[in-house]
Amino acid sequence: MDPIYDLQMTGNAVFAATGVLAANRRGLDVFGGVVLGTVTALGGGTIRDLIVAAPVFWLADPNYLVVAVLSSVIAFFLAKRIASGYLLLLYLDALGVALVGVQATEKVLGLGHGGAISVSMGILTGIGGGLLRDVLASRPTLLMSRDIYATPILIGCTLYVGLRYTSLNRGLTLAVCTTVIFLLRAAAIRWHVQMPAWLTSRHDPQP
Amino acid sequence: MDPIYDLQMTGNAVFAATGVLAANRRGLDVFGGVVLGTVTALGGGTIRDLIVAAPVFWLADPNYLVVAVLSSVIAFFLAKRIASGYLLLLYLDALGVALVGVQATEKVLGLGHGGAISVSMGILTGIGGGLLRDVLASRPTLLMSRDIYATPILIGCTLYVGLRYTSLNRGLTLAVCTTVIFLLRAAAIRWHVQMPAWLTSRHDPQP
Amino acid sequence: MDPIYDLQMTGNAVFAATGVLAANRRGLDVFGGVVLGTVTALGGGTIRDLIVAAPVFWLADPNYLVVAVLSSVIAFFLAKRIASGYLLLLYLDALGVALVGVQATEKVLGLGHGGAISVSMGILTGIGGGLLRDVLASRPTLLMSRDIYATPILIGCTLYVGLRYTSLNRGLTLAVCTTVIFLLRAAAIRWHVQMPAWLTSRHDPQP
Repeated sequence: MDPIYDLQMTGNAVFAATGVLAANRRGLDVFGGVVLGTVTALGGGTIRDLIVAAPVFWLADPNYLVVAVLSSVIAFFLAKRIASGYLLLLYLDALGVALVGVQATEKVLGLGHGGAISVSMGILTGIGGGLLRDVLASRPTLLMSRDIYATPILIGCTLYVGLRYTSLNRGLTLAVCTTVIFLLRAAAIRWHVQMPAWLTSRHDPQP
Repeated sequence: MDPIYDLQMTGNAVFAATGVLAANRRGLDVFGGVVLGTVTALGGGTIRDLIVAAPVFWLADPNYLVVAVLSSVIAFFLAKRIASGYLLLLYLDALGVALVGVQATEKVLGLGHGGAISVSMGILTGIGGGLLRDVLASRPTLLMSRDIYATPILIGCTLYVGLRYTSLNRGLTLAVCTTVIFLLRAAAIRWHVQMPAWLTSRHDPQP
Repeated sequence: MDPIYDLQMTGNAVFAATGVLAANRRGLDVFGGVVLGTVTALGGGTIRDLIVAAPVFWLADPNYLVVAVLSSVIAFFLAKRIASGYLLLLYLDALGVALVGVQATEKVLGLGHGGAISVSMGILTGIGGGLLRDVLASRPTLLMSRDIYATPILIGCTLYVGLRYTSLNRGLTLAVCTTVIFLLRAAAIRWHVQMPAWLTSRHDPQP
């Protein structure tokens, strides 16, 4: 029993579910849903591994592929019964982003890259799958929403790089940073927190 | 004369043509059309080769690039004379998907990966180019259509993995599985076959 | 002081700015803008390096990442004061495409690949970042516009391959080809030059 491996699989399964939910209203068939869910779950980490020239993680451990497919199938049939799909999608996405982003930062840091590269790869891995999902489902990407999206990942991954220089143990560091990202993003969703006007590109503050 | 090499080139040329047809109505210039056709033809296989860490196939054999470019140019000028472009696009896409998907499954299986990885890479290669095409042409991806799209590839590629354990020779196995995918997809297009309701995410069966 | 390195950084910074400007009207926050700008700046070259199996350039030299992030931040705050953002975006994009495309052709040629591969990788690198930008910002890709877009890059990169066989020195060759691409594209923007009708796919020449 490796709790960190379990967390990685949880992030994987959660992301797959968001891929299915994102396309749920449009009349997708179950196999199309599985493709979309699986690409969402494995996409960000695949891009990360290609860039850092590491073996692609789901070829080395096909459990990731199997879990993503199963989670997509389950999400597909559950989603037909869920009315408030969009809000659930946002929270699940926040959880997936938090789990996957921090672990990617750790992986890239462990490969000997510096802090700036590691944080940026954490952000890329965290949002890469969701961006692929939005693009393939023909939705505006979460990047384009007015909500606070990328900022919590930046804060959590930077915090992780900083905490690695302290004596805090690895599991606790992972847990703290993952929680920070999730809570910041969840708060932004729950209370519709938006950036202060000077940090957004809106020309007119009125809707 | 290697009939399998010829089939690969055919899949390549057919996919390139679909890329041009997909964008045909929008006032594309010929060089933009060539870029779109070439990305469609080479995109899926490129992603596959990157993931399995094989040399990218069209760098190893530039004939693929040349054929994709020529096919795009021909499709561009023919397309101006063709009225029923969209239906032709669907059938050509079905042929391209069948040719490319089965051959990708064979390639990845030959690299020593298991059945689940090989089938998933067959699906990814089969639909990857078409997904890139739809995204770059700002069309809803074929993944989001109500038609049966991913299922025939899943069936054909899984059949291929199964048949490799029999004494059937390689060429015949390739031909059977490619034909199965094409016929299933063509039937879905021709008779507007859709998944049974319990396998789709539509909340209301009425349009 | 290496003027070619400076040119590469200029292309990098310019592309990052276009990523921010492209999404400027939509109420992006600053961190979302930085992600979009950075993906735009580094995306094309990253795809090129993955395909030719070279180390990804911004891992080898993190200055590219730092410059892309800084340029995105500056563009973000400047953009709030700029009214004619769209036209500026087009010219900056032309400059970025010219700088990045020619240098990619040189790099791939230097790795021992032939002319056709080198030119196609120049085009891919030149337009890859911009295509990612358009897709992530949910805009129609520049490939789908009626303006002349891919053709100048094709001409400039082909010219570069030709000039390498002459005795012209490297710096001058780079400068000439970059200028040719930028001027052709800028002229197309300035005078709304479009392809002759027989080279476009429009069925009706009237708007």
